[in-house]
Amino acid sequence: MDDSRFGLARTARLSGPLALDGGGSLAAIDIAYETYGTLAPDKSNAILICHALTGDQHVASAHPITGKPGWWSRMVGPGLPIDPDRHFIISTNVLGSCMGSSGPASLDPVTGLPYAMRFPVITIRDMVRAQALLLDHLGIARLEAVVGGSMGGMQALEWAATFPDRVEAVVGIATTARHSAQNIAFNEVGRQAIMADPNWRGGDYYATGQAPTAGLAVARMAAHITYLSEAGLTGKFGRRLQAREAKSFGFDADFQVESYLRHQGLAFTDRFDANSYLYITRAIDYFDLAEAHGGRLADAFRDTRTRFCIVSFDTDWLYPTPESRIIVHALNAAGAEASFVEISSPYGHDAFLLDTPELFRVVDGFLRAGESR
Amino acid sequence: MDDSRFGLARTARLSGPLALDGGGSLAAIDIAYETYGTLAPDKSNAILICHALTGDQHVASAHPITGKPGWWSRMVGPGLPIDPDRHFIISTNVLGSCMGSSGPASLDPVTGLPYAMRFPVITIRDMVRAQALLLDHLGIARLEAVVGGSMGGMQALEWAATFPDRVEAVVGIATTARHSAQNIAFNEVGRQAIMADPNWRGGDYYATGQAPTAGLAVARMAAHITYLSEAGLTGKFGRRLQAREAKSFGFDADFQVESYLRHQGLAFTDRFDANSYLYITRAIDYFDLAEAHGGRLADAFRDTRTRFCIVSFDTDWLYPTPESRIIVHALNAAGAEASFVEISSPYGHDAFLLDTPELFRVVDGFLRAGESR
Repeated sequence: MDDSRFGLARTARLSGPLALDGGGSLAAIDIAYETYGTLAPDKSNAILICHALTGDQHVASAHPITGKPGWWSRMVGPGLPIDPDRHFIISTNVLGSCMGSSGPASLDPVTGLPYAMRFPVITIRDMVRAQALLLDHLGIARLEAVVGGSMGGMQALEWAATFPDRVEAVVGIATTARHSAQNIAFNEVGRQAIMADPNWRGGDYYATGQAPTAGLAVARMAAHITYLSEAGLTGKFGRRLQAREAKSFGFDADFQVESYLRHQGLAFTDRFDANSYLYITRAIDYFDLAEAHGGRLADAFRDTRTRFCIVSFDTDWLYPTPESRIIVHALNAAGAEASFVEISSPYGHDAFLLDTPELFRVVDGFLRAGESR
Repeated sequence: MDDSRFGLARTARLSGPLALDGGGSLAAIDIAYETYGTLAPDKSNAILICHALTGDQHVASAHPITGKPGWWSRMVGPGLPIDPDRHFIISTNVLGSCMGSSGPASLDPVTGLPYAMRFPVITIRDMVRAQALLLDHLGIARLEAVVGGSMGGMQALEWAATFPDRVEAVVGIATTARHSAQNIAFNEVGRQAIMADPNWRGGDYYATGQAPTAGLAVARMAAHITYLSEAGLTGKFGRRLQAREAKSFGFDADFQVESYLRHQGLAFTDRFDANSYLYITRAIDYFDLAEAHGGRLADAFRDTRTRFCIVSFDTDWLYPTPESRIIVHALNAAGAEASFVEISSPYGHDAFLLDTPELFRVVDGFLRAGESR
C-alpha cells in the first residue's frame, strides 16, 4: 500500500514576491500542505481542497495538536468521493493561517520577530495566488477540481475567476460570493472580543507567554452559534441541564448548551492563533467576488469553461441557500455549466463537515462526470 | 395640563421579605418606577409596562444618562395606544437591573458594600413578584393590562400565570414562553465576554473605577446582531464602507456595519451595569413558563379569564413567530381568549421598539376592546 494515500505533510518555501491585493507584497512565503495519492503521468488528476476559516491542511490526517481525524475525512480517503486511489489531492494551509503557512505568527525576515499585526492584510484572492504559486512549485498547470466549503468555497470560486484556465471544475459548498452585513457583524464581534483581551497587546503577545485566549474563546463561541441551526441546537441540547437535578441559581454552566459552547471556545484556543483569526476573518469580510468585476458577479465568470457544482444546506443561516442561488444565477448568466443542489440537513452550516450522505453522492457524481468525458 | 402625563419618577422601598425562586429571599427591595396619567377612582385603568433586557422605567421620558426619548415613546403618550389621558401607566425598572431598582450594584444592607455577585440569582417570576409588591404599595389590586415586548412579554405572560386574578389583559410582543438553546447560547457568549474581561474581577469592580466595559461592549455587540434582521442589516448597511473611498487593508472599522456595532457596544457601557447584564440574561435563560406547570404550557393558563394579545414579527429570528404560535396554541388549549397577529416588518426583533404602525393599531384596538366591555 502506498503511504501517500494517507497523506504526506510538507512545507514549501515559495520565492516571491507575492503581490497582494492590499498593495504590498511578501518576499517569500511558506505554504504548508499535504498531498494524498499520486499525480497521474499526464497530471490530469490533481484536486485542490480549500479549508474554511479555522481549518487546515490536515484534511484527512490526524490533527497534530488535537489528535482528531482530519476535518474532511468523510469526504477524502480511499473509496470516498475524493479518493487518493484516483486523485492527487492537495490540501494547503491558507496564507495568513497558523498551521505552517506564513501568517502573523511567522517570523518577519526583516526583524527576525513575529510579524504580529505587521503582517499585511490579505484577501481570499491572495490566498488563492499563494496556492497557485504552490501548484507552480509542484509543476501542476491545471486542476481537475478545486473543492471547498464555507471560506473554502470562496477560494474555489475565486480560483475560477482569477485562474480560469487552471481549473476544470469547482465545487463550492455552503458558501457565498460575498459576505453580507450580518456576516461581517459576527466576524467583527469576534475581532473585538480578541482585541478587548488585554493579553492581545496590539498583537504582540508571542513573547509574553500569554495569548489572548479568553477573547479568542469568546470569538469562537459567537461564531460557533452561526455554524449550527436553531433546530439542530434544540435537538442536540434543548433546555437540558447538566448532570445535576436542578438549576444552580448561579453562573456555572447550568445548561448543556452552555457547557458545550464553553468547551468549543476553550478547545479552539489550543489550536489556533488569535492574530490569524483576525486576519482570516478580515479576508472573508473583504470577499466580494463581483466587486473586482465591475459589481457584476456574472462577469467574474465570463467565457469560463469551468464546470461548477454549488451546494447549499436548507438550515444553513450563515450562508443560506439564497446566497448560493445568487452564484448560480451569475453562472447561468455567464453561460457556465453549473449544477446546484440544496440539501436538506438538520445541521446548519456545519453540515458540510458532517456525515451528510447526499453531499458525498453529489460530489462523487460531479467529479466522476468530469472524469468520464 | 397635568404634569403626570409626562411621567413622574419615583423609587419605592418595599419591605420584604421577597421570597425568590432560587430559595433565598431579599429583606427589602427598591423598585424604581415611573407613572403617567391618573388612577381612576375605581382603579380600573392601570397598565403595567414591562421592559426588555436592557430597558428601564423611562418608557416615555428622556433617559437620564443618554438624554434620548423614552424607549417606547411611540407607544406610550397622549394620543398614543397607551395613553396617560386614559390610563394610569406604571413602568418599573426590573429587579436585578441598574436604573434604581435593587440589583447587583445596590448596597447589601448587611455589609454596606455592593452586592456584586452576592446578589441572589433571580427569575422572571421574581421580577413579577417585585412588581406585584409595588402594586400593593400603590394600592392597585388589578391591572387593566400588562404590556411588554421581548423580556417584557415574558413578564406579561408570567403575570397571567402567577397572578391570574390581578390581570385583565396581557399584550405579549416579540416574545417567547421559554428560551431556546440558541437563545441561551447567545446570552452565554455575552456572559463569557463580560467574565473574560479582567476588569470584571469576579463582579467586584465597583470600587476599582474600572468596570468591565470592553467585555460588556462585546456582549452588547453580539446581542445586537440578534435584534436585527439579516435583510434589515443589508438594507441599512450592506457592504458599504465608511466615509473613505476604499478598503483600508487594516483593522479599523472599514464597513459601516462595523462602525455601527462598535458604537452600539461602547454607548451601551455608559448606561448599563455589567453585573446586571449577567443577572438579567440568567433570568431570561431560566425562563420556561411550562416548566413550573408540569411541562404543559396550557396549564400555566388554566381557568384564566385574562385576555391575551400575542404579536410577532415575520423577520424576528430571536423569538420567531413559531414561538408565538406555541403560546397561542397553549392559550387556545386553556380556553383563553387570545388574539394573535404576525406583523410584517423589515426590522427583526427590534420592530417592537420602532415605528411599526400596525403594532400600534393592534395594541390600541385590543386595549379599547377591553375598555368598551
